[in-house]
Amino acid sequence: MKIALAQINTRTGDLSGNTEKILDTIARARTLGADLVILPELTITGYPPEDLVEKNLFVQKNMTALDRVVAETHDIGAVVGFISPNESGEGHPAFNSVALIENRKILGVQHKSLLPNYDVFDEMRHFEAAKERKIFTYRGKRIGLAICEDSWNDKDFWPHPLYHTDPIADLAEQSCDWIINISASPFSIDKNLLRLEMFKNTSKKYRIPSVLVNLVGGNDSLIFDGCSFALNAQGEMIAQCRAFEEDMVLVDDDSVKGPFSPWQLNEEEQILEALILGVRDYLKKCGFKKSIIGLSGGIDSALVAAITVQAIGKENVIAVAMPSRYSSQHSLEDAKKLAENLGIEYRVIPIEGMFQSYIESLAPQFKGLPMDTTEENIQARIRGNILMALSNKFNAIVLSTGNKSELAVGYCTIYGDMCGGLAVISDVPKTMVYKLAHWINREKEIIPQHSITKTPSAELRPNQSDQDTLPPYEILDGILKAYIEDLKEFDEIVALGYDAAVVKNILTLIDRNEYKRRQAAPGLRVTSKAFGFGRRLPIAQGWR
Amino acid sequence: MKIALAQINTRTGDLSGNTEKILDTIARARTLGADLVILPELTITGYPPEDLVEKNLFVQKNMTALDRVVAETHDIGAVVGFISPNESGEGHPAFNSVALIENRKILGVQHKSLLPNYDVFDEMRHFEAAKERKIFTYRGKRIGLAICEDSWNDKDFWPHPLYHTDPIADLAEQSCDWIINISASPFSIDKNLLRLEMFKNTSKKYRIPSVLVNLVGGNDSLIFDGCSFALNAQGEMIAQCRAFEEDMVLVDDDSVKGPFSPWQLNEEEQILEALILGVRDYLKKCGFKKSIIGLSGGIDSALVAAITVQAIGKENVIAVAMPSRYSSQHSLEDAKKLAENLGIEYRVIPIEGMFQSYIESLAPQFKGLPMDTTEENIQARIRGNILMALSNKFNAIVLSTGNKSELAVGYCTIYGDMCGGLAVISDVPKTMVYKLAHWINREKEIIPQHSITKTPSAELRPNQSDQDTLPPYEILDGILKAYIEDLKEFDEIVALGYDAAVVKNILTLIDRNEYKRRQAAPGLRVTSKAFGFGRRLPIAQGWR
Repeated sequence: MKIALAQINTRTGDLSGNTEKILDTIARARTLGADLVILPELTITGYPPEDLVEKNLFVQKNMTALDRVVAETHDIGAVVGFISPNESGEGHPAFNSVALIENRKILGVQHKSLLPNYDVFDEMRHFEAAKERKIFTYRGKRIGLAICEDSWNDKDFWPHPLYHTDPIADLAEQSCDWIINISASPFSIDKNLLRLEMFKNTSKKYRIPSVLVNLVGGNDSLIFDGCSFALNAQGEMIAQCRAFEEDMVLVDDDSVKGPFSPWQLNEEEQILEALILGVRDYLKKCGFKKSIIGLSGGIDSALVAAITVQAIGKENVIAVAMPSRYSSQHSLEDAKKLAENLGIEYRVIPIEGMFQSYIESLAPQFKGLPMDTTEENIQARIRGNILMALSNKFNAIVLSTGNKSELAVGYCTIYGDMCGGLAVISDVPKTMVYKLAHWINREKEIIPQHSITKTPSAELRPNQSDQDTLPPYEILDGILKAYIEDLKEFDEIVALGYDAAVVKNILTLIDRNEYKRRQAAPGLRVTSKAFGFGRRLPIAQGWR
Repeated sequence: MKIALAQINTRTGDLSGNTEKILDTIARARTLGADLVILPELTITGYPPEDLVEKNLFVQKNMTALDRVVAETHDIGAVVGFISPNESGEGHPAFNSVALIENRKILGVQHKSLLPNYDVFDEMRHFEAAKERKIFTYRGKRIGLAICEDSWNDKDFWPHPLYHTDPIADLAEQSCDWIINISASPFSIDKNLLRLEMFKNTSKKYRIPSVLVNLVGGNDSLIFDGCSFALNAQGEMIAQCRAFEEDMVLVDDDSVKGPFSPWQLNEEEQILEALILGVRDYLKKCGFKKSIIGLSGGIDSALVAAITVQAIGKENVIAVAMPSRYSSQHSLEDAKKLAENLGIEYRVIPIEGMFQSYIESLAPQFKGLPMDTTEENIQARIRGNILMALSNKFNAIVLSTGNKSELAVGYCTIYGDMCGGLAVISDVPKTMVYKLAHWINREKEIIPQHSITKTPSAELRPNQSDQDTLPPYEILDGILKAYIEDLKEFDEIVALGYDAAVVKNILTLIDRNEYKRRQAAPGLRVTSKAFGFGRRLPIAQGWR
């Protein structure tokens, strides 16, 4: 039996667009001689549909779309994800389901059993869990169907299983020839290796070949990396799809090629590819062609500009430098050089006149009071206002350029440099920003060397440096990772070797700046714990 | 047995503050001769703790706090909510629990069985559901303990039960003298009547008296209204706590007084009381004393100022008028009059100079292009920048003044009038804004009559009126309620009698402006479906 692993890029909520793509994919797989084509989770609706699931009409139209896919699936089988209504009169209104289709008929439907409801996942909000798991016979093969999380509860793999059932064990007990998992498993660094290890474990344990077809593409904050694969009963890889792009690969269980050694991108490549895809898809799926980026001459905005050029083309990027009385000559030169290196449009709009008019207008209010961060924030917000004005006038999306380290400790101005429709690197710690810049420059200088080597500064007052108020970024990022990603607390972080006073200060800053992050632009997620939808903390709170 | 219903105002995450308050409350109940004092859900941690539950240290310290409460509970019993760790090695890491304490001992612990995971609730994200429900005997009485949602799945009350078990039926079957429910059930209009009807239904059906003790106070977007009560076995009210404030009421089941007729506040009173409490608590729990409000002379900012004065006192409100070339003389007079009526500090900062400097700075960019919303948004963002500058300089929180109708259709400027730490009326539709203003003015003019009667306008271009681009607010609000609160779709809304083209336009605007709302300030929730945390929709999506 020839199985086509078809990792496609769906768009959330776009039922007709997704259906067209599904039909096209099925037709291509048929042309390639596949017996069965496997598509990713919730193929018809896109993932995550979030509260669209609460709309009856949305669920109905998704069923109509499934009918259309069924009607056009002939001379091949297809495994397609969709939402099925729960008609029992009890429980949540819908199931997250997978249909096995052949010759214009649905051979079987399996609902998802394990509904992830942590981090960025909200599936218990909408879906009812499957009560039972069945095997379906397709062209003489016994097929077990699973959906994403269903494969993530093996008791030998996880020391602390989150659920009380193991759907894969259930399927294996009923004996099957293939376990097929359709997924929408979002990217974080090396997540594809984790998936592979997990599936190797079960394929070997049960001596059953398995297929994982994962979604690819960006949907708001989430980037799906694809990296679909098939394993034989020894847990060896016999088919592998590309990362971060649509792909279709055939595996023939009668004449298996391989096993293949899995390739692996390095960290820098993974993150850059993810961000490029995330930017491209966010703009495309929101209907934007052009973007606007404020260039400070620093490394963060340079990195964002370089990523965006790769995502949407240099002709679609407008770079804007907005120097103030505190901007160094270097910064303006660095920004200009970057724009030249990237070949993007470059505009300079000095903010001195506007800044001066605020200072004058506010003078009667601020009489006798010293300058402080107020005046710094005014400058950042003038820049935000200018970028948004260009955005309004030219229908181009502003991309914000703050990194995760800044956002964590609030070293950023709400309504100022935080302005934008998408925060490209808000989940990239500053130390990784440097690594990515070096990687981009590995063959020739794209990001001006001086932007990388100079002392980081917001340039909002004379002789300012990030390290005036923050510890060196190696230390800051270490503490951030321990606290945010690894959920360690003060004592545990100090035990890692960090200075207690520094740790205390940083944790307080992180907690206190939750209010800024609540109003931040959606940010592309590349670590296991990003700010935003996957990290939900109260603002008015008394912990610590 | 004398039972004290003690609805207290906890602060999320403030374990030591909450513990002090619990101990104080228990001591007061003891003084009043109570046998048993009932406190609201998650008393020790506050509600909703959100991802604080994921911190081991937080759960540990909450257990230490419980130990302290247990140690000091003598000569009285107490029913206290807390988080208990799940030590089974499987499933979610914690339970949402209630302890029955007497004489320095825990008589029993009941975990919550039904975990709400819809709208603003995320409890399946953190908690494991109880597998069983027990009866505990306290001073000769058989007590059934329930937590909030546990009482919300009666098959006779709900046509479509969301869960597969009914904890109250379970407890009733085991026979008990009292069913005691501790809740954190957030306010929406007339929600207290719904709770009462539900409890009446079960008390009558099972012939068991019941107590509901509900949380009171604001925690971020959620306002808890209290309105705790006790019912006899006939479902009649025998004790009732106040709305929107802390309260303690005793009920003696050996010499019952009553039954009482439940009082009910009208809609305007409910919403105003809720918003006043919401503003007061958000500021207090965030550590702010003062607030800044931009006054346009219009009804929205006037209403917010009036509410804020009631919440935190006139001496803590700074009103700022920021007239432009497009502001009418009336508007400035109305703003001034309002400030005088309220007795608040009033400042005027004209924005003309700043606006002019933007226009000049952007002239080379915008050469040959007509004026459009760009120039309107620049003005709104100048005002945002000024308010935030005052906020920075004087450590006062900016309260944003946009209403729900505007926010729904995007008739507001992101980073402009949307600036602020709290959006006071972002869940109040414009038609309700008018009703609230009339209610506030019922005895004397507080909000200037002209602010109420004049044609609503953003005054961002000459002779602008809201109705240039929007339908009349009665129509807009009807469509909004149908779509957002009642989850109706296009055909159903048109069937209500609205013009199809208008409905289509409005629904498109609502969907398209999700990106603005994603970056909005937290808003106080007063309807059954507010924007924000309880309504989760993708931005880059293709539905409709």
